[in-house]
Amino acid sequence: MTVDLNADLGEGFGVWTLGEDDAMLDLVTSANVACGFHAGDPAGLLRVCRAAAERGVRIGAQVGYRDLAGFGRRFIDMDPEELSAEVIYQIGALSALAAAAGSAVSYVKPHGALYNSIVTHEDQARAVAAAVHAVNPALPVLGLAGSVFFSAAEELGLRTVAEAFADRSYRPDGQLVPRSEPHAVLRDADQIADRVWTMIAEARVTADDGSQIPIRVESVCVHGDSPGAVQIAAAVRRRLAEHGVHPAPFS
Amino acid sequence: MTVDLNADLGEGFGVWTLGEDDAMLDLVTSANVACGFHAGDPAGLLRVCRAAAERGVRIGAQVGYRDLAGFGRRFIDMDPEELSAEVIYQIGALSALAAAAGSAVSYVKPHGALYNSIVTHEDQARAVAAAVHAVNPALPVLGLAGSVFFSAAEELGLRTVAEAFADRSYRPDGQLVPRSEPHAVLRDADQIADRVWTMIAEARVTADDGSQIPIRVESVCVHGDSPGAVQIAAAVRRRLAEHGVHPAPFS
Amino acid sequence: MTVDLNADLGEGFGVWTLGEDDAMLDLVTSANVACGFHAGDPAGLLRVCRAAAERGVRIGAQVGYRDLAGFGRRFIDMDPEELSAEVIYQIGALSALAAAAGSAVSYVKPHGALYNSIVTHEDQARAVAAAVHAVNPALPVLGLAGSVFFSAAEELGLRTVAEAFADRSYRPDGQLVPRSEPHAVLRDADQIADRVWTMIAEARVTADDGSQIPIRVESVCVHGDSPGAVQIAAAVRRRLAEHGVHPAPFS
Amino acid sequence: MTVDLNADLGEGFGVWTLGEDDAMLDLVTSANVACGFHAGDPAGLLRVCRAAAERGVRIGAQVGYRDLAGFGRRFIDMDPEELSAEVIYQIGALSALAAAAGSAVSYVKPHGALYNSIVTHEDQARAVAAAVHAVNPALPVLGLAGSVFFSAAEELGLRTVAEAFADRSYRPDGQLVPRSEPHAVLRDADQIADRVWTMIAEARVTADDGSQIPIRVESVCVHGDSPGAVQIAAAVRRRLAEHGVHPAPFS
Repeated sequence: MTVDLNADLGEGFGVWTLGEDDAMLDLVTSANVACGFHAGDPAGLLRVCRAAAERGVRIGAQVGYRDLAGFGRRFIDMDPEELSAEVIYQIGALSALAAAAGSAVSYVKPHGALYNSIVTHEDQARAVAAAVHAVNPALPVLGLAGSVFFSAAEELGLRTVAEAFADRSYRPDGQLVPRSEPHAVLRDADQIADRVWTMIAEARVTADDGSQIPIRVESVCVHGDSPGAVQIAAAVRRRLAEHGVHPAPFS
Repeated sequence: MTVDLNADLGEGFGVWTLGEDDAMLDLVTSANVACGFHAGDPAGLLRVCRAAAERGVRIGAQVGYRDLAGFGRRFIDMDPEELSAEVIYQIGALSALAAAAGSAVSYVKPHGALYNSIVTHEDQARAVAAAVHAVNPALPVLGLAGSVFFSAAEELGLRTVAEAFADRSYRPDGQLVPRSEPHAVLRDADQIADRVWTMIAEARVTADDGSQIPIRVESVCVHGDSPGAVQIAAAVRRRLAEHGVHPAPFS
Repeated sequence: MTVDLNADLGEGFGVWTLGEDDAMLDLVTSANVACGFHAGDPAGLLRVCRAAAERGVRIGAQVGYRDLAGFGRRFIDMDPEELSAEVIYQIGALSALAAAAGSAVSYVKPHGALYNSIVTHEDQARAVAAAVHAVNPALPVLGLAGSVFFSAAEELGLRTVAEAFADRSYRPDGQLVPRSEPHAVLRDADQIADRVWTMIAEARVTADDGSQIPIRVESVCVHGDSPGAVQIAAAVRRRLAEHGVHPAPFS
Repeated sequence: MTVDLNADLGEGFGVWTLGEDDAMLDLVTSANVACGFHAGDPAGLLRVCRAAAERGVRIGAQVGYRDLAGFGRRFIDMDPEELSAEVIYQIGALSALAAAAGSAVSYVKPHGALYNSIVTHEDQARAVAAAVHAVNPALPVLGLAGSVFFSAAEELGLRTVAEAFADRSYRPDGQLVPRSEPHAVLRDADQIADRVWTMIAEARVTADDGSQIPIRVESVCVHGDSPGAVQIAAAVRRRLAEHGVHPAPFS
């Protein structure tokens, strides 16, 4: 039995660094690499693409709003046509860097506020799906099962890959608790590892009101920029191995 | 007999426009489309790619320094590795937009201060050539014959396409008179048209000291953002037609 | 009898221009000068400050979201503390340029999506009001009468100056018809001039459903970047003069 | 006997941090706070201004090229008028934030590549000096004694404050060894502390060829973003205290 582990990487900018990309690349099977709009300068992105290629870690385009100052974590009420063009631009930019590193972009995952907005925002969801389709209809998208984004993507024939978040709290409706709330992010590595195992073994997770909710998991997101991210990813990976589940890219 | 006519297009940004892209696309055979670093927002770039594709005008990636405030017209003393990654990023971004428009990037032309600096700046010249090669060794580059950039590109096996500028003054050494000098840009459409014809028919041009210098011309650049650019391009095209020279993409 | 006429100016960026600043400065009494976040490079802003100072036109800080690509016309779901700091930053930047031009910032007017959002968005409204107050409690703010922004500003003791828009359609509730709707902007100079006169003389305006709504006018905004902006501003000024109303800065 | 200790602070951007601002503020007497062009988002700048104000640490405007991607460490061949306007803009922006924090900008120090270029680049040096003078002729400037910048500043009547760098190597001509060279930055806290004491006590420093060169020191720069910056600053401060030299703002 296998599961994909993904993390957000390449999220520095120029002199500024964020997270421990090399250590995370030793633990994950899919790298969501930033594309320069919410984070990531080209030289840094090329370095992380090379490091991923060396380790055989798959590269995904982590597309976001054009908002370095806000790290793509603020909703922007964009025109769908402009959003679509911006997503195409980002995927293309990272594709060329990945190719120069001897690899390729093999999936797309929206970042931050864009990820959250297209759970429910129809026009933006359709814009992102259309952009992925325009670049390459064979590119899978990572996201939240049940989201408007997944419906839009499936309508266009895109493969959708449902992910669960190792260290984020869920609301009873299956959406993530927003980062602005204090209990949005879990910190305890052991608790997180147990939780991921339950998600995979039993296809359910405990929501923040204590209720059990169903969850579909083809990939597990272990964040790259949380404090202790490396320890958490290692704990998740160890726990899964104890149960005979091995990390492997989603098919 | 044929000659390629190229122009700089897609050089607006958001609400701001520059030049008359549609009118120029009716006159040229190759469109040097900005890539977002010196100009060009993704939605605007997608529009100009579509307009070029509709008319069968070839698309080139007009790569520049990351400098919206300076329109890429200021030398930046960049690290060559960073420059190389930025050029890869830009070509990739435009490639995806061109593909979404049903076309492709089929050559690369550096813009503004980058164009000028790599006439003589060895490290930056090599960085740009290496970037083009990393994306696709079959992509030709447009530039100045005799430049360090052309040597670097040819060393890597890239096809170089020598261009002449319809409306720019030349120094006796074959370099362009910098825009900071008052006589850098010619304005008279008839004079420009005559000059282009002489360049093509006799492979020479009159430098700003009155001397005749040899010039190699596979493509003629008619600027997109000068006042009167459309009239100038039309005059050049007419004059060439009178002499039986027809616009066609370089081979 | 007098009325203030204001317009948005300094809204180019680098090589890109927008509107006819010099012509508008001959017609208005208050210049809402961009501050670099939605538009305006420092050298261009300094030029428009000098041109305003020469003509005795008052300078206001036209603060906006940090969004050059969207010209500040897209709502950004910003943290109020960050918004407040960004507004302080912008007012300070323009104040130094205005001082270098021999003038000063003498009021603040939010721009675009920020203007619209703080009609109803309490946290952002309070953030903008607090920022103005932090820079200088004696600075008046221009905006929409009845807005949450005005309540927040008045709570802090700021002077509020109610403005009417010469060329924008109003909804029956007194808010502006959004730019995304086709009838948002009026184009006919004569009709606009009549409308402004009615606003001033009778303190009412015809909403887009045909109803008459009351309007409080201490300043009239004649847009700087609409096509025909100069002709419209001139027509408004002429019509008012015919009725003995002369342009003068609000007190 | 006293000496001023200064450090570069506020050099994060959005989610990205750099250096330990609070710890450094406990050690220095003058804080060179970034102004948003090479680093520093408004909310972060306001926080560091408040922290400086609480401790009675003086605030200076650390102005730089508009180059977040390059952290202001790349020479940009800017037009002097544009540079001047950009410097005015930056000083004004930080002044408003400092005022909101209950303090003020009380000097100006150029950053990175701008600092280095105006040691010898006459047009840019004059542009920066003119900008400071335009904002406030009473603002002192920090820089390198003997630089073209100091000549230009003194011609305009500005007070110049000569600084020495605790942890940077000097060439025999008194200029800094560029960061691109391996021995540009010293790392050993004790060696650095000794070196600073020699600079102050004997007005000389050992250049990178072993020769002794004279140095004028009114302020000592202890970098904020080097690894070990806090330990180095603490060691310098301790060593000076052992010799009876106490940190105090330059007069």
